[in-house]
Amino acid sequence: MASDLVLYSYWRSSAAFRVRIALNLKGLRYETRAIHLLREGGEQHTAAYAALNPQELVPTLVDGQRVLTQSLAILEYLDETHPPPALLPADAAGRARARALSQVIACDIHPIGNLRMLQWIESQFGANDEQKGVWARHWMATGLRALETMLAGSKETGRYCHGDTPGMADACLVPQVYNARRWKVPLGDYPTILRIDATCDGLDAFRDAMPEHQPDAPKA
Amino acid sequence: MASDLVLYSYWRSSAAFRVRIALNLKGLRYETRAIHLLREGGEQHTAAYAALNPQELVPTLVDGQRVLTQSLAILEYLDETHPPPALLPADAAGRARARALSQVIACDIHPIGNLRMLQWIESQFGANDEQKGVWARHWMATGLRALETMLAGSKETGRYCHGDTPGMADACLVPQVYNARRWKVPLGDYPTILRIDATCDGLDAFRDAMPEHQPDAPKA
Repeated sequence: MASDLVLYSYWRSSAAFRVRIALNLKGLRYETRAIHLLREGGEQHTAAYAALNPQELVPTLVDGQRVLTQSLAILEYLDETHPPPALLPADAAGRARARALSQVIACDIHPIGNLRMLQWIESQFGANDEQKGVWARHWMATGLRALETMLAGSKETGRYCHGDTPGMADACLVPQVYNARRWKVPLGDYPTILRIDATCDGLDAFRDAMPEHQPDAPKA
Repeated sequence: MASDLVLYSYWRSSAAFRVRIALNLKGLRYETRAIHLLREGGEQHTAAYAALNPQELVPTLVDGQRVLTQSLAILEYLDETHPPPALLPADAAGRARARALSQVIACDIHPIGNLRMLQWIESQFGANDEQKGVWARHWMATGLRALETMLAGSKETGRYCHGDTPGMADACLVPQVYNARRWKVPLGDYPTILRIDATCDGLDAFRDAMPEHQPDAPKA
């Protein structure tokens, strides 16, 4: 389907998953172009893709002539160019909180456990699958523990991470919980996170963005 | 000096450095409270500080009753509550670009090479100082190479990362370049980054925020 919005995505990328959720929450149609991170050395490293995204990472969102990278910057852009529903609260303090929750995940959890890091600890330190698992679980648990404290300890947490409407922080949380389950991180100590994740799972915007529902997901 | 703004900072933290630059660009006075990351197991891990910042990381900015964490969320908050000069461009596409440049650093370079990661690769894989250096330089070079391409290839790059006024991306760039020099990352391949860094170094807002000028910096 032709569209003005083109998302370069990989089905299992947490960062692309965030953008899919945001596009769905906004009700925006978009075309998916799959970038297979594992095929033949990684399609993200081709010259054609690197010209769009010099970091050679997904996602990239193309909106007409504009090429947008970095998932949180893309969410902010969508929120500014396509209101409503808003992905961020109306007040500065609330926005600061929602952004901080998002950045706990996007800066301090996800980049440390993503594919390129695991490939590097294997090549640099000979990490085997067991050690990669220890690595991924350690950093996810460290971040999720802080996030649970931030969520459970605040009156601003509602049905979702901030109040009773889904937004940026939820679009970061759900992909991170998905990834934590994949790595078998024990999640019992994070009841608030699990409750919000379950609430999000009741919304089509989140379900339709799930990795398994993407056109480039492997057939079961 | 008493102030409504209190910054919990560590002199050599890149993330605290960003916030100091932003506060200075805005002309805001603030009180520094030092959190010594290395003293006696790390002051960031005390119960008193963890109550402010559950991630047990710096910086934390306290603005009256508001406790703000995550450096980029703090910069956005300062920009929304204390205009002008603006830290972000006026147009949505420009803001998306400035945020993306910032996030290349704040998500994909800095968290991977910071203190807690280096401590972890030592404990997990027995990394020695040489291997820690290889690690830090690899991730900094990977990110700075992409950033140079993004800056050198855009007509929106001016005297600073975005146009001719300093902003959020510059507040991220200068601490990262500082850190790269500390780790002896060869910087010759990044002429645009070096040019912008030198331009920023001509401004008091950046110079006053330098690690060596902080109250908790070791005496020479």
